[in-house]
Amino acid sequence: MSIDLEIARAATLRPIADIAAEAGIPAAGLDHYGHHIAKLTRPYLDSLASRPAGRLILVTAINPTAAGEGKTTTTIGLGDALNRIGRRAVIALREPSLGPVFGRKGGATGGGHAQVVPMERINLHFTGDFHAITSAHNLLSAMIDNQLYWGGSALDPRKVTWRRVLDMNDRALRRVVLGLADGPARETGFDITVASEVMAVLCLAADPADLIARLSRIVVGRTADNAPVTAGDLHAAGAMAALLADAIQPNLVQTLGGSPALIHGGPFANIAHGCNSVIATRAALALGEFAVTEAGFGADLGAEKFLNIKCRSSGLAPSCAVVVATVRALKLQGGDALDPLAAGFANLARHVENLQRFGLPVVVAINAFTGDTADEHRSLIDACAAMGVEAHICTHWADGGAGAEGLARAVAAAADAHDAPLSLTYADDLPLADKIRAVARTIYRAADVAFSAGATRDLARFEAEGHGRLPVCMAKTPYSFTADEKLHGAPSGFVLPVDSVRLAAGAGFVVALCGSVNTMPGLPRVPAAARISLGADGRIEGLS
Amino acid sequence: MSIDLEIARAATLRPIADIAAEAGIPAAGLDHYGHHIAKLTRPYLDSLASRPAGRLILVTAINPTAAGEGKTTTTIGLGDALNRIGRRAVIALREPSLGPVFGRKGGATGGGHAQVVPMERINLHFTGDFHAITSAHNLLSAMIDNQLYWGGSALDPRKVTWRRVLDMNDRALRRVVLGLADGPARETGFDITVASEVMAVLCLAADPADLIARLSRIVVGRTADNAPVTAGDLHAAGAMAALLADAIQPNLVQTLGGSPALIHGGPFANIAHGCNSVIATRAALALGEFAVTEAGFGADLGAEKFLNIKCRSSGLAPSCAVVVATVRALKLQGGDALDPLAAGFANLARHVENLQRFGLPVVVAINAFTGDTADEHRSLIDACAAMGVEAHICTHWADGGAGAEGLARAVAAAADAHDAPLSLTYADDLPLADKIRAVARTIYRAADVAFSAGATRDLARFEAEGHGRLPVCMAKTPYSFTADEKLHGAPSGFVLPVDSVRLAAGAGFVVALCGSVNTMPGLPRVPAAARISLGADGRIEGLS
Repeated sequence: MSIDLEIARAATLRPIADIAAEAGIPAAGLDHYGHHIAKLTRPYLDSLASRPAGRLILVTAINPTAAGEGKTTTTIGLGDALNRIGRRAVIALREPSLGPVFGRKGGATGGGHAQVVPMERINLHFTGDFHAITSAHNLLSAMIDNQLYWGGSALDPRKVTWRRVLDMNDRALRRVVLGLADGPARETGFDITVASEVMAVLCLAADPADLIARLSRIVVGRTADNAPVTAGDLHAAGAMAALLADAIQPNLVQTLGGSPALIHGGPFANIAHGCNSVIATRAALALGEFAVTEAGFGADLGAEKFLNIKCRSSGLAPSCAVVVATVRALKLQGGDALDPLAAGFANLARHVENLQRFGLPVVVAINAFTGDTADEHRSLIDACAAMGVEAHICTHWADGGAGAEGLARAVAAAADAHDAPLSLTYADDLPLADKIRAVARTIYRAADVAFSAGATRDLARFEAEGHGRLPVCMAKTPYSFTADEKLHGAPSGFVLPVDSVRLAAGAGFVVALCGSVNTMPGLPRVPAAARISLGADGRIEGLS
Repeated sequence: MSIDLEIARAATLRPIADIAAEAGIPAAGLDHYGHHIAKLTRPYLDSLASRPAGRLILVTAINPTAAGEGKTTTTIGLGDALNRIGRRAVIALREPSLGPVFGRKGGATGGGHAQVVPMERINLHFTGDFHAITSAHNLLSAMIDNQLYWGGSALDPRKVTWRRVLDMNDRALRRVVLGLADGPARETGFDITVASEVMAVLCLAADPADLIARLSRIVVGRTADNAPVTAGDLHAAGAMAALLADAIQPNLVQTLGGSPALIHGGPFANIAHGCNSVIATRAALALGEFAVTEAGFGADLGAEKFLNIKCRSSGLAPSCAVVVATVRALKLQGGDALDPLAAGFANLARHVENLQRFGLPVVVAINAFTGDTADEHRSLIDACAAMGVEAHICTHWADGGAGAEGLARAVAAAADAHDAPLSLTYADDLPLADKIRAVARTIYRAADVAFSAGATRDLARFEAEGHGRLPVCMAKTPYSFTADEKLHGAPSGFVLPVDSVRLAAGAGFVVALCGSVNTMPGLPRVPAAARISLGADGRIEGLS
């Protein structure tokens, strides 16, 4: 059994009603899914709207290694630690996708003694939110091909851009031809559910009415004359919203340390904005003195989009940013330098500087690994101090919340003292191309952006169609500030290529693709699925 | 709003814990899904194994019209009526599929005052069982194409028979070519989830260990030499079972009359056996003096497969069969005869006779419609009496359980008095072709069966591979005793064509396809989805 599953199983979970009661949530505010998971009800969420909000803490990271830097684990450890030092914190995370669970990466519920539980259930179907999103997405797909089959639709079958989705790593579905039995036959493909625009819509919607409005605006394709055709035009948005009626309600679970955690939504961090739902974040802020949340990938992608997309559209604003780093990843960023850790520090320093440009106080969390040395930790703390930033060695993986108390004190102090407005990278009325340039220059430190001819044409079309005020959603490798995943450290002066752009009118952003983005992962030669099973006692074995 | 949804919404639902307590289920035996739905836990199900079983009532029907004869409504009405007359009854039904909900037929929770509730939730995602089946099925699909991609598998890409599934009416997916981005490209298709062998496996499995054993036996394709390749060979069965860990537990809800109802599983009634799960049926028998259940389509398909497949493999045996008929459908069966009702009675008479051949006492339920006349009802009661069978006019749609008390008394008396063994249509050791002939001659009254050359070859292959003792699963039109849906009444002397056969080694039967069977429905020109929406209060509108 994996160490994470072993620790999770050894824990005695408290009834979720008790966790809720401590957070001030009455029994009537819960819809139970077993003894340890509940959804917050719509009337209860409505009742939270008038409460004063707590302070929002955003956990982000340096450019990661393939294994991740432990952002989720640190978010959980920090939440537990804040509660330990008497500052009431609610954690707000994304839901895991089945693809990585059965593929290579495993679950997404933290690790060691900083986990959310019940681990097996959260990592598998949880409360069915992703299945509902899959159904809603594919209902729209079926209604599109149904229109093409019966005829009379203005939609041009060659210009349908809406694909289908499955919550599965299934590379054979990346490109398919369908309609071979009952035409029209056409080429399309499947993405993994987290890449669905419906996922992004759910995560950015304020309430059921806004959900339907956003779903209605989704552009599924174009007419022969290139006029956009929307889900609303196909009368699909209502039924899609009905399928999402439960999925739009946030899920409450507990950490191993007993902190309340809202786990809700999980959009891709490349072609979408990569953070949990606005509804859950707002609920966490209404319930806690602090809401601790995270954004996908490194701060160049995750924090930038959290701030410029999610905060812009919702009015949310963090009071402190935490940058997670590991010695291992910083050494990787340092490459073949004589002192790779010192060289790699440039990557961390730039992320810190970028977050400060947003007007945020920054604290660095060094997520400790057993292979790290005390000298390495010391040198990182000193280097941060030289920048005027506090760094804390965190051992929450081994010690739970007790291992992140220093971090918690620093974060609470910084957030309490914070009183500056959020400074976004670009204004709504900047042209779309200039928004992309602003991110590339300010955050990535590119010298310029090279737009393909198609990207330039499409940006002009989106603006002509009235979408010019949308923010941009950058889709770029998470491993580098540049579009080349092999360029580590803190490169500058490069030209960022924007190969193509996509309109996500329902989600409310324009995606800029810098290089190719894979929206349907494949399974490795020996997938994790081959090790997973069900015991005769009904318990799940082999999850990691 | 539809009348069914209006009635369902006007009802005050009781907490499911109260319904459970009345049925003798302790709080620890429940996993809650909201206030009105719960799953029975595995330890609780295990504790039921040693209890004496109640009596099983099978509700079946004449050959239906496209609208159905009201089997589900009658099953619910009968269950409510049994409880009203002081005989403790638990209802066991199938779960609805999203395909018909968004397509043409609507939901599957009964109607009028004979409904299971909460109607919206049961008809949409319920507890996610079908989503889990979809995921488990498609995980196997992804692992198949993953093996073909990485190479080293003995599986011949041209001989893969395992398809993919979605719980959606999506005709464009009937035939697709996949693998166009990352080969090997091959032709395959999608079925609706209820047609998945995983669905049949879940419904026939006795417990988690049997579930894995059956999943392992699923044949997904063949090698170049035609040797079968199974899910077990691909190391997929364990992870599939893990995805089904919750789905295998039955769901408890209530009727509008307050009766407990277990709703669990829902295999297709053509290429699968069309009834709810063995686990739920057994639980209903352990909890009730009576368990009232139904089987899909008319008795020629539904009851035959309930008895020859489900009862054979599980040891279950009904104590009484109820044949549901409507004046409308009997007239349709009578065609252009001078007295179509009298002529159509031949259809009902043959179903009654067939069920008696299984050794079962039979009661007829006339599901009353407002257009029926008293004379029509009288003539049906008299015609049944002439056969020595009681017929009861039932008004449960309008009156709830009070409208089926006569039926309930007759059913209880017949079941109480029943003491004969079940007489199946064929023995396990009969050759597969002879099993098909036995059903065709005994149940359908065919003169003979015409097997295609391919069917004859494949049956011989299945026997050579050790599957000769499996029962057969007939896939035939539900609208006639013959394979021609236009032949009504009680035809005889015809030749039944068996065009092809399929091995469902996991489910544990050999499918005989008599004519074409559509395993992926399409949406109508204006689908029900276009009328469904989500209110600002979070309530679902437009379901029927």
